Amino acid sequence: MSYLKERILKDGVIFPNNVLKIDSFLNQQIDPKVMREIVQEIYAYYKDEKITKVLTIEASGIAPAIMVAAQFDVPMLFAKKAKAATLQKDQVYETKVYSYTKGTTSNVVVSKQYLNPQDRVLIIDDFLANGEAALGLIDLVDQAGAQVVGLGICVEKSFQKGRKRLDEAGVKVYSMARIAEINSDRQEIIFAQGH
Amino acid sequence: MSYLKERILKDGVIFPNNVLKIDSFLNQQIDPKVMREIVQEIYAYYKDEKITKVLTIEASGIAPAIMVAAQFDVPMLFAKKAKAATLQKDQVYETKVYSYTKGTTSNVVVSKQYLNPQDRVLIIDDFLANGEAALGLIDLVDQAGAQVVGLGICVEKSFQKGRKRLDEAGVKVYSMARIAEINSDRQEIIFAQGH
Repeated sequence: MSYLKERILKDGVIFPNNVLKIDSFLNQQIDPKVMREIVQEIYAYYKDEKITKVLTIEASGIAPAIMVAAQFDVPMLFAKKAKAATLQKDQVYETKVYSYTKGTTSNVVVSKQYLNPQDRVLIIDDFLANGEAALGLIDLVDQAGAQVVGLGICVEKSFQKGRKRLDEAGVKVYSMARIAEINSDRQEIIFAQGH
Repeated sequence: MSYLKERILKDGVIFPNNVLKIDSFLNQQIDPKVMREIVQEIYAYYKDEKITKVLTIEASGIAPAIMVAAQFDVPMLFAKKAKAATLQKDQVYETKVYSYTKGTTSNVVVSKQYLNPQDRVLIIDDFLANGEAALGLIDLVDQAGAQVVGLGICVEKSFQKGRKRLDEAGVKVYSMARIAEINSDRQEIIFAQGH
C-alpha cells in the first residue's frame, strides 16, 4: 500500500455525506513524503509524453503541481479564482467552476500569455470528486488551442461522477489513491483497485 | 547575479506607483529553475536551525514554501484567508492582514492542531513589501507559543517598510532579491546589496 493511502486511512477524518478531510497531510499541512511519492508516480506515468507545462488551480493544487513541474523541469501555471468585476477579459481565458461543497460558482482564469497552442499540458489537482475543477481547467487549455495530455490526481472519490465524466471525454487520468467508498457510520474508507 | 534577479530584470513588468509584476516566473506561472535556486539559498542559510515546519500564506507563497519544506524534510503549512462568518474560532489561530494593494483586511487562519510550542518555524513568502503578511504569520506562530526562526523571502521591496519593521522586531530575514528602487519613468529596477 502506498504511503498516501496509509495516511488517508490513519489520518483522514470522515464527516457525514462522504466528506473526507485530509488537512493534516495534503490540504493545509502538507507532508513532503506524500509529495515525493506523487512526483515519483506521476512522473513515471507521464514521462514520455513531452509535457511542456503543468496546470493546476489555487490553492491546494499548487503544492503537488510545483513539485511535479520541477521533476519535469517545465513551468507550473495556476488558475486563479477571480471576482467577475476585476476580470480583464481580453487578457485571460475564463471558465466557470461550480463547487458542490460550497454551493457557489467561481470564475476561474489564467493569463492568455502563459498557454499557447504548442503546449502539452499535464493537469494536477489534489482532489477529483465531481470533476468540476478538472473540466474547467480542460476548458481553459482548449480555449488556448493547447493539448491536455492527461490529469494527475492525488485523491479520487471514485463513487462520485468526476472520473466517469473524464473517461467519457477521453481524457487520460492517473489517480494516486482511488476511494471506492467512504462509510461515515462505520468510519471506514475502502480503496478501489488501479489508478 | 542570481537567476532570479536576471529574470526580474528581463521579465518583470513595471507599473506606476512602484508596482512590479513578476507573474511570468513567480506569481502565476512559476519557473522551476527559480524554485531550485530559492531552495538552495534558503536551505544553505537556515540549515543548522533545526527547522520543524515551514509556514506560508495562500496562494503564491505555497510553491516556494513546499519546495523549501521538501528540502528540510519537514511539513509545510499554509495559512488561509477566511471569511469571518465561517471561522470556527476555537479551532484556529486567527490574525488580520491588511493589503495595501487591495485596500482590504483579510482574516488569516491556521488550524491550532498544526502549530505547537515545540515548533521552530521558517516563514516563506514570495514578496515582502510593507510586511503585513509576514507580521501576521509571525503573530500566528506567537499565538501557538512556537518560535519563528526566520523568514525566507523571494523578492523584497527594500524601499517599503516591511524589512525595517522585521529588523526592528529582531526577526532574521533572508531575501533572495532586494529591490532598492523601481523607477517607472525610466522602467528601471535597482537592486540593493546583500540579503
